[in-house]
Amino acid sequence: MKGIYLVTDEAACQGKSLDIVVASAARAGAAWVQLREKKAGTRLFLQKALDLKAILKPAGIPLIINDRVDIALASKADGVHLGQSDMPYAHARRLLGHKALIGLSVETWEDVEAAQDLDVDYLGVSPVFSTPTKTDTKAPWGLDGLAGIRGYSRHPLVAIGGIHASNAEAVITAGAHGLAVVSAICSAADPFEATRHLVRIFERTNEEKPS
Amino acid sequence: MKGIYLVTDEAACQGKSLDIVVASAARAGAAWVQLREKKAGTRLFLQKALDLKAILKPAGIPLIINDRVDIALASKADGVHLGQSDMPYAHARRLLGHKALIGLSVETWEDVEAAQDLDVDYLGVSPVFSTPTKTDTKAPWGLDGLAGIRGYSRHPLVAIGGIHASNAEAVITAGAHGLAVVSAICSAADPFEATRHLVRIFERTNEEKPS
Repeated sequence: MKGIYLVTDEAACQGKSLDIVVASAARAGAAWVQLREKKAGTRLFLQKALDLKAILKPAGIPLIINDRVDIALASKADGVHLGQSDMPYAHARRLLGHKALIGLSVETWEDVEAAQDLDVDYLGVSPVFSTPTKTDTKAPWGLDGLAGIRGYSRHPLVAIGGIHASNAEAVITAGAHGLAVVSAICSAADPFEATRHLVRIFERTNEEKPS
Repeated sequence: MKGIYLVTDEAACQGKSLDIVVASAARAGAAWVQLREKKAGTRLFLQKALDLKAILKPAGIPLIINDRVDIALASKADGVHLGQSDMPYAHARRLLGHKALIGLSVETWEDVEAAQDLDVDYLGVSPVFSTPTKTDTKAPWGLDGLAGIRGYSRHPLVAIGGIHASNAEAVITAGAHGLAVVSAICSAADPFEATRHLVRIFERTNEEKPS
């Protein structure tokens, strides 16, 4: 799980269609897309998932569904992202099978420890910085918190929360394998350019990083 | 699908625990229970489904989950009830398999016609009367509307919306195979007695009905 991970927020797209934003991010090198939809009913959520899957499948970019295993199954998405109040990991893995990508948000150190024995595909380190996009999260991890998780956890880390072009390098240097962004792409005037900029920062920082 | 069908609404339980209400209704002869939960996160919804399944399984009473195929799969519930803005029937059937019980709400005549070719297990005729429990429904069918559906549809009909002991006989006589109730059981001072009363009305009316 390395690269730029777009998490959708239709409200943050400021009038741009979600399909256009996702297609632009895909062309510009986003590595995964997570469909996050907290308000739509099941039918509309599924329709959005099917639309995004049709855009992303030809590009070979995995589609991850936030929370909803039923939407992931019905849309043949590649996996789910689970928060701590979503379906417990073991249930989701049983329903989705061993090939599915399953990510798990960690908001406390207890979450990080509890995840160590699970065969999740990545941890969502949430939030790294405070953010207006999600208001129901715990205290931010900060760069030091992220580095602490990197030193302990055996899982790839996708950092989320307040990540923009201006702090992306610091977040990668602190230990993130992937950078999840919402408004940095969804709210950008040009989502293609915004994604390409983040992808270049990601590639440059990883080339420079001592491995 | 004949008999009394309890649809849960924890807010309508007025302080009684959902487990107690459901266990009481089960002992008193309810034929099915639908867990409807519109506010809880996935983890809590699943826990409630697992709790109700543990109560109902020994009694051989099917547990139906409102809307959420993922909760039904994870809790090994017996099926789902789908509204017109929930997952389309064909997706739900594919995910749940041919043994699952799948009900579909019909709120317009177009819904009734569209359901005719589907192998749903019942139609939820919704709402028969106006009701404060659900505020997002279309105009009530009334007894004449219910009778009209009975004359056309090949599916068993479960009537829902404003059904209480005082109108249950009229609803059965108009054509309902099953009576779905929310507040008539959940809000009753004694859910056991309230269920038993409805079950007796149901049995007496069906004995009297010309077949």
